[in-house]
Amino acid sequence: MRMSPATTSGEVREVLFTLGDISGVLWLPAGAAGPRPLLLLAYGGGQHKKAPGLVAQAERFVAACGFAAAAIDAPGSGDRPRSAPDDQLLAAVRARAAAGEPAGPAFASYNAGLARRAVPEWQATLTALGELDEVGPDHPAGFWGMSQGAGVGVALAAVEPRIKAAVFGLAGQESLAAAAALVTVPVEFVLQWDDQLIARESGLALFDAFGSAEKTLHANPGGHGDIPPFERESSMRFFARHLLAESSRPGT
Amino acid sequence: MRMSPATTSGEVREVLFTLGDISGVLWLPAGAAGPRPLLLLAYGGGQHKKAPGLVAQAERFVAACGFAAAAIDAPGSGDRPRSAPDDQLLAAVRARAAAGEPAGPAFASYNAGLARRAVPEWQATLTALGELDEVGPDHPAGFWGMSQGAGVGVALAAVEPRIKAAVFGLAGQESLAAAAALVTVPVEFVLQWDDQLIARESGLALFDAFGSAEKTLHANPGGHGDIPPFERESSMRFFARHLLAESSRPGT
Repeated sequence: MRMSPATTSGEVREVLFTLGDISGVLWLPAGAAGPRPLLLLAYGGGQHKKAPGLVAQAERFVAACGFAAAAIDAPGSGDRPRSAPDDQLLAAVRARAAAGEPAGPAFASYNAGLARRAVPEWQATLTALGELDEVGPDHPAGFWGMSQGAGVGVALAAVEPRIKAAVFGLAGQESLAAAAALVTVPVEFVLQWDDQLIARESGLALFDAFGSAEKTLHANPGGHGDIPPFERESSMRFFARHLLAESSRPGT
Repeated sequence: MRMSPATTSGEVREVLFTLGDISGVLWLPAGAAGPRPLLLLAYGGGQHKKAPGLVAQAERFVAACGFAAAAIDAPGSGDRPRSAPDDQLLAAVRARAAAGEPAGPAFASYNAGLARRAVPEWQATLTALGELDEVGPDHPAGFWGMSQGAGVGVALAAVEPRIKAAVFGLAGQESLAAAAALVTVPVEFVLQWDDQLIARESGLALFDAFGSAEKTLHANPGGHGDIPPFERESSMRFFARHLLAESSRPGT
């Protein structure tokens, strides 16, 4: 793993890194020393690892909970080269969205292909970050993923025992129900009641499919991009409850 | 209103009261002085105003937020005389529950009749408690009601402008959808995904029916009585956010 020099702003230290083809970013409390839980964040299709909403969410988790947080560019997104199939699939999804149609099979197909490529990348990232003094190999990891990020995250949580809790949202059961059934860690699932990309019934069916004994559905009015700000606070409390439960609050 | 002498336990002062036929209980911070938001609590059918779960919830709100909290016995419940129709309807509901059937029309019919009697009682209680120095007439009121208590609360919130925020749950759309459409204050709605008394689709339809611009559905696995403890904390944060927003924290 190659790491750029850290930059610190307020309470948060930020480090860009590359791991083979993967480009990522790590956030830590400014004065972090010693290991701590790691939160992985993944946002929607085509977004950059440093999309403003994602950075704000990561910084909030880091400052309030003392977590480490990390995001990587999905294949074909952010700083990474895009392939012709990436472009074709994304164009098809966007055309349906522009026509006011649920993203449906095209979105599910795109996300399923992306997850196949992204899961091993997230696993390699977990391993590499776990070698850092400020993260460590033994603390639990959480995954926060919305939309395409949920598609990747569900596939990852289905196979990766280091993920101990997850917030997913803005996703439906197409292509994900089978993986969701393998997820057994606590899940908070965020659904937008009037999501123009994800049919309500499909989102409810994905919540139903999770194998977790503890899972909570949070549904709010509004479209795909309209998650209310209080859900960010709820996500933070959820991770604090599950990732800090067995370990004392890390040093800041 | 006739009030019994207060008893204080830990951080909470408790006062039993009667108002005509209504028997109720008021909880206040032990050292309460001056006005504060009032939270009304109503639990399930046939329960007493001092059912343990209800008292724990009320005491937590009072101790953590500085609210006043109150509960009254529903007509035919707790310390109040029961009529033959009360008994017959409740027996029908319980027979269906025992048979593993959704409570359905019998439950809805019972709750609708109960709401017609209970709404003016809650309104009279709001007025009488508002005359106390420790409550006052100008602070917002909230309503927390589950099951039969949600039936009463939805009917009350539809017509009573003093209710500024509400947590409802364990109820379906039968007999309540029309009243829910008239509710415009923020609502947090608690649904049990495997509720043996309320069909899932009916609960989702009631959430859908609320007229509120801000409404959040919280769904968790398990039956009618299995709401997880973290939902109690969520209810408290919801009321703190909405009832304390416009008024500073009351004196304790």
